[in-house]
Amino acid sequence: MEKGYIHVYTGNGKGKTTAAFGLALRAACADKKVFIGQFVKGMKYSEVKVCDLLKNIDIEQFGLECFINKEPKEEDILIARKGLEKIEKIIENNTYDVVVLDEINIALYYNLFKLSEVLDILSKKPQNMEIVCTGRYAKDELIEFADLVTEMKEIKHYYNEGVEARRGIEC
Amino acid sequence: MEKGYIHVYTGNGKGKTTAAFGLALRAACADKKVFIGQFVKGMKYSEVKVCDLLKNIDIEQFGLECFINKEPKEEDILIARKGLEKIEKIIENNTYDVVVLDEINIALYYNLFKLSEVLDILSKKPQNMEIVCTGRYAKDELIEFADLVTEMKEIKHYYNEGVEARRGIEC
Repeated sequence: MEKGYIHVYTGNGKGKTTAAFGLALRAACADKKVFIGQFVKGMKYSEVKVCDLLKNIDIEQFGLECFINKEPKEEDILIARKGLEKIEKIIENNTYDVVVLDEINIALYYNLFKLSEVLDILSKKPQNMEIVCTGRYAKDELIEFADLVTEMKEIKHYYNEGVEARRGIEC
Repeated sequence: MEKGYIHVYTGNGKGKTTAAFGLALRAACADKKVFIGQFVKGMKYSEVKVCDLLKNIDIEQFGLECFINKEPKEEDILIARKGLEKIEKIIENNTYDVVVLDEINIALYYNLFKLSEVLDILSKKPQNMEIVCTGRYAKDELIEFADLVTEMKEIKHYYNEGVEARRGIEC
């Protein structure tokens, strides 16, 4: 059985969640089973429909409304912690080939749970499983722990010109 | 109708083609129609099966065996040029919402066609169409021309430790 790795997509540029979805799609094309857990996010982006289109991909959100630029509330922490517990079970049960922890770096940045808890769970990764962590502000210890780290660096972005996120492109 | 933009994913890190596929998937989730043209590549990666899984995505390869680290042959140039002609027609016909020009930066780097030809074609982009260009070594003029540019920067990669590309993950 092939060895699986831990990926981190971080940085301030576009393409982190997008790359995780691309990896999920490629895996589905190769008949692998994928679980996508989205931390922080509770918004019904078009990408949430991925499970209707691809039977090999399951997706679940562990967030409410986005609290970025505000303070996370008690409920934000609760739903994120429940998500992390679910991820722990998924990793222990080993029924998925690829597990995406979308925006887990943001969840850590906002202290929804502790880095040590995440690293404990990641260290239980079955040999063959691939895990993808996304989000800005990846912690140094996670980068250290991971096998593959890409920084998405913004060179140019039309958000800066006031364009809002568009359905089916950014969300 | 929403305005579409030109994206460039470049840099030496993992996630450029992957992000383009993620964007294609998100667009398909929003009922948009996607065309993926892959320059340089002729290898039947798992991702080529995407059109079997998602009816809104069409994919075509405009390459033979990979010539990277060798010199491109006459046939490599021919097939790339035919690909570029097809892309020109697709852009003119305006039947797709998202058009991915995978590895077009590599095709340009190896002089399979000229930058001026590509910029001419891109300048015919219909207002609503989204175009995504991927590959290392993006030309400055293309970066200048594009609306959104992300550099995928390698922080850590297991290729450096001798792990080969794996089916359903990297290819």
